[in-house]
Amino acid sequence: MSLPEPVQRRDTVLDPWIDTYAERTHGLTVSAVRALFAVANRPEVVSLAGGMPNIADLPREAIGEAMATLIRERGTQAMQYGSGQGEPFMREQITEVMAEEGIAAHPDDVVVSCGSQQALDLVTRVFCDPGDVILAEAPSYVGAIGTFRAYQVQIVHVAMDAEGIVPQALREAVAACRAAGKRVKFLYTIPNFQNPTGVTQSEQRRRELIAVAHETDILIVEDNPYGLLAIEGEPMPALRSMEDERVIYLGSFSKTFAPGFRVGWALAPHAVREKLTLAQESATLAPPVFSQFAISTYLHQFDWRAQIQVYRDMYQARRDAMLQGLIENMPAGTTWTHPTGGFFVWVTLPEGLDSQAMLPRAVSARVAYVPGTAFFADGMGSRNMRLSFCFPTPERIIEGTRRLGEVLRDEIDTLHTFGIGTAEHLYRNVTAGPAPDIT
Amino acid sequence: MSLPEPVQRRDTVLDPWIDTYAERTHGLTVSAVRALFAVANRPEVVSLAGGMPNIADLPREAIGEAMATLIRERGTQAMQYGSGQGEPFMREQITEVMAEEGIAAHPDDVVVSCGSQQALDLVTRVFCDPGDVILAEAPSYVGAIGTFRAYQVQIVHVAMDAEGIVPQALREAVAACRAAGKRVKFLYTIPNFQNPTGVTQSEQRRRELIAVAHETDILIVEDNPYGLLAIEGEPMPALRSMEDERVIYLGSFSKTFAPGFRVGWALAPHAVREKLTLAQESATLAPPVFSQFAISTYLHQFDWRAQIQVYRDMYQARRDAMLQGLIENMPAGTTWTHPTGGFFVWVTLPEGLDSQAMLPRAVSARVAYVPGTAFFADGMGSRNMRLSFCFPTPERIIEGTRRLGEVLRDEIDTLHTFGIGTAEHLYRNVTAGPAPDIT
Repeated sequence: MSLPEPVQRRDTVLDPWIDTYAERTHGLTVSAVRALFAVANRPEVVSLAGGMPNIADLPREAIGEAMATLIRERGTQAMQYGSGQGEPFMREQITEVMAEEGIAAHPDDVVVSCGSQQALDLVTRVFCDPGDVILAEAPSYVGAIGTFRAYQVQIVHVAMDAEGIVPQALREAVAACRAAGKRVKFLYTIPNFQNPTGVTQSEQRRRELIAVAHETDILIVEDNPYGLLAIEGEPMPALRSMEDERVIYLGSFSKTFAPGFRVGWALAPHAVREKLTLAQESATLAPPVFSQFAISTYLHQFDWRAQIQVYRDMYQARRDAMLQGLIENMPAGTTWTHPTGGFFVWVTLPEGLDSQAMLPRAVSARVAYVPGTAFFADGMGSRNMRLSFCFPTPERIIEGTRRLGEVLRDEIDTLHTFGIGTAEHLYRNVTAGPAPDIT
Repeated sequence: MSLPEPVQRRDTVLDPWIDTYAERTHGLTVSAVRALFAVANRPEVVSLAGGMPNIADLPREAIGEAMATLIRERGTQAMQYGSGQGEPFMREQITEVMAEEGIAAHPDDVVVSCGSQQALDLVTRVFCDPGDVILAEAPSYVGAIGTFRAYQVQIVHVAMDAEGIVPQALREAVAACRAAGKRVKFLYTIPNFQNPTGVTQSEQRRRELIAVAHETDILIVEDNPYGLLAIEGEPMPALRSMEDERVIYLGSFSKTFAPGFRVGWALAPHAVREKLTLAQESATLAPPVFSQFAISTYLHQFDWRAQIQVYRDMYQARRDAMLQGLIENMPAGTTWTHPTGGFFVWVTLPEGLDSQAMLPRAVSARVAYVPGTAFFADGMGSRNMRLSFCFPTPERIIEGTRRLGEVLRDEIDTLHTFGIGTAEHLYRNVTAGPAPDIT
């Protein structure tokens, strides 16, 4: 008989409120990798883990001057309480930004939020009771999984291929949930440069998914933080541009401008928008007011479309470095996706390797990533990792892939020496490289 | 047989998602007075309704310059993602602000939020399941009632007198809830210049409440947005300064600096703080980052204590105008509280008057207030109204009370003419004026 792990036991005893928390709170746990990431943030580590945009190229001097003028001339409004739904001028400008992706919307149907994360929180709050089902790509955004769990929702993953969610898999998932007596509240999807896979839904696939949503009578929550950051080609039409009444669209200024202002939004069918506004009032009274004035000023006085082009060029160089580094450094049997925009590449390791187990060794070798298991609600993903190309320079990205390649080779050697007899196939003549291997 | 009201029917039909919402969403309803307040915001109306601070006296020119420097020199951090718990420097400065009220706290135990409203949302989220009980003053802050309802909590009001919550009433409320099989999650209280009554707990009363909290084993959530805005005398010691382990303290920069940055905080026992941080990460990823840099810069470079003194003097003149105007203009039988700080006076009308029913007539007479029923979860308060002295000038406040006095006299006349025989007593020789009539 083994004793309980001492640290856990002490934590329990030390929290006198442990019996007082809500049911939902017991599902909130500290991520096992969080402590490790404190180490991974040291400058000597190449972090391919985080999803922080690189905002070093913003014209800070000019933005600072614009903010000084804003406070001098309109400070009593910009620093005052504001509307729970968001400032009217901000909502109008948001419709102009969405028009870039073919969305025709009325400012009345926009609800501003404290980052699009909070829009997702409000949507979940408005729709989901404990035990309800949300369908999501397999894998999906770790922050969405966290929010859904905080509302005690059951997450059901739907298979993807190189064009995104597989329509027949979606159809079957809805049917299976309903056969089991579950209520499916919505499909959560990131159609462009998906986090974590980097996969983009084809236009044909988008139409098929909307058809399945009609057929199965489900709502779609379209999360689109990266849509305008297409590296190759023009932005794809948003799901919301194809379907008004069955799509709630979530947008953000975090990647097209800067995340520190914490301004995102939801565009929702009219009746839903009213519920979201009430939920927002009870959650925050009003989303960040000064931030809305600041972003509005930026959109008004600066060429924000040109800035997005600056971002696109910068991220293109980093994505190219990432793909080049992977080709040069990954051992045989490793495959990865080829994103045409966004921040992420999804890597599938040779069989027998475990990305979570090897993470401490990778950090020791001064490279960090996010293990694939973080992006699944069901324990899958141990052979996967998410690599970000958004923040480090191209040189550092290549160096990161070099270090990662060494770690993987060491792992494979170890597996070969001490493994369970499955390691031999790793040295077969498998072509390293491009493969949309993400299901 | 009467037909259903057409507008309601159409609304119902027009929301195709009505059967899809969460249980909690059906409790979210548009306030009946909201449309009226759109009218009340017209410049010709003296609004004694809102709780907006008057920030016209902030040194906008200098603040603008400081923000320009901030963005130029530290913009890549200030506009980037930040910590879910809040920036370390911000949490440290928050402990300095709390020290003004005798609180000794560690920055590790502070969680920054999008206004203190969001801190309240997170605390409720972490502690409350549907059907749980939160105890609150009778009456209590309308925004807190909204948040508690959004979590399907049962609000039980506890009687107050001129020194705040009555300890024996608290004891009995806890016992009655437990006898009924209910779980009491916490007492929500605003000890200083309470919203809406303006009442401040005496120091002796604070000690008694803490003793009852120990005796009944309940947690206290101390909401203190106005604590430093004492008009008479020095700030009272916070409940949290008397008791570390049983109090969650909520603070805000909205009234001591400016609300538009949306920065508030919770100070919580260590284990609770960890839960709040996880809840914050799932709700917003991080509270407003740029706002934290902005407020930190303000606290660092400006004499914020002197600014609070400017606010105190300004609000003193407005409170004095309010009390003078009430004495001059209220009809006999009307009583009100005498706040020693904060923003609000609580008025009790002569018997037979209904503050909600007469609100449209008051707005027609170009004066607005919040009806007392908004501050009760149980339908009480129809003879009460909350008057704010924070935003209009002293002259406008006096004019507002003059208009309100006329409306009340008209109401009394109407009641006398068409009333149910209870109006006569209104003309008895009742002394108008000071009375801590707030239960």
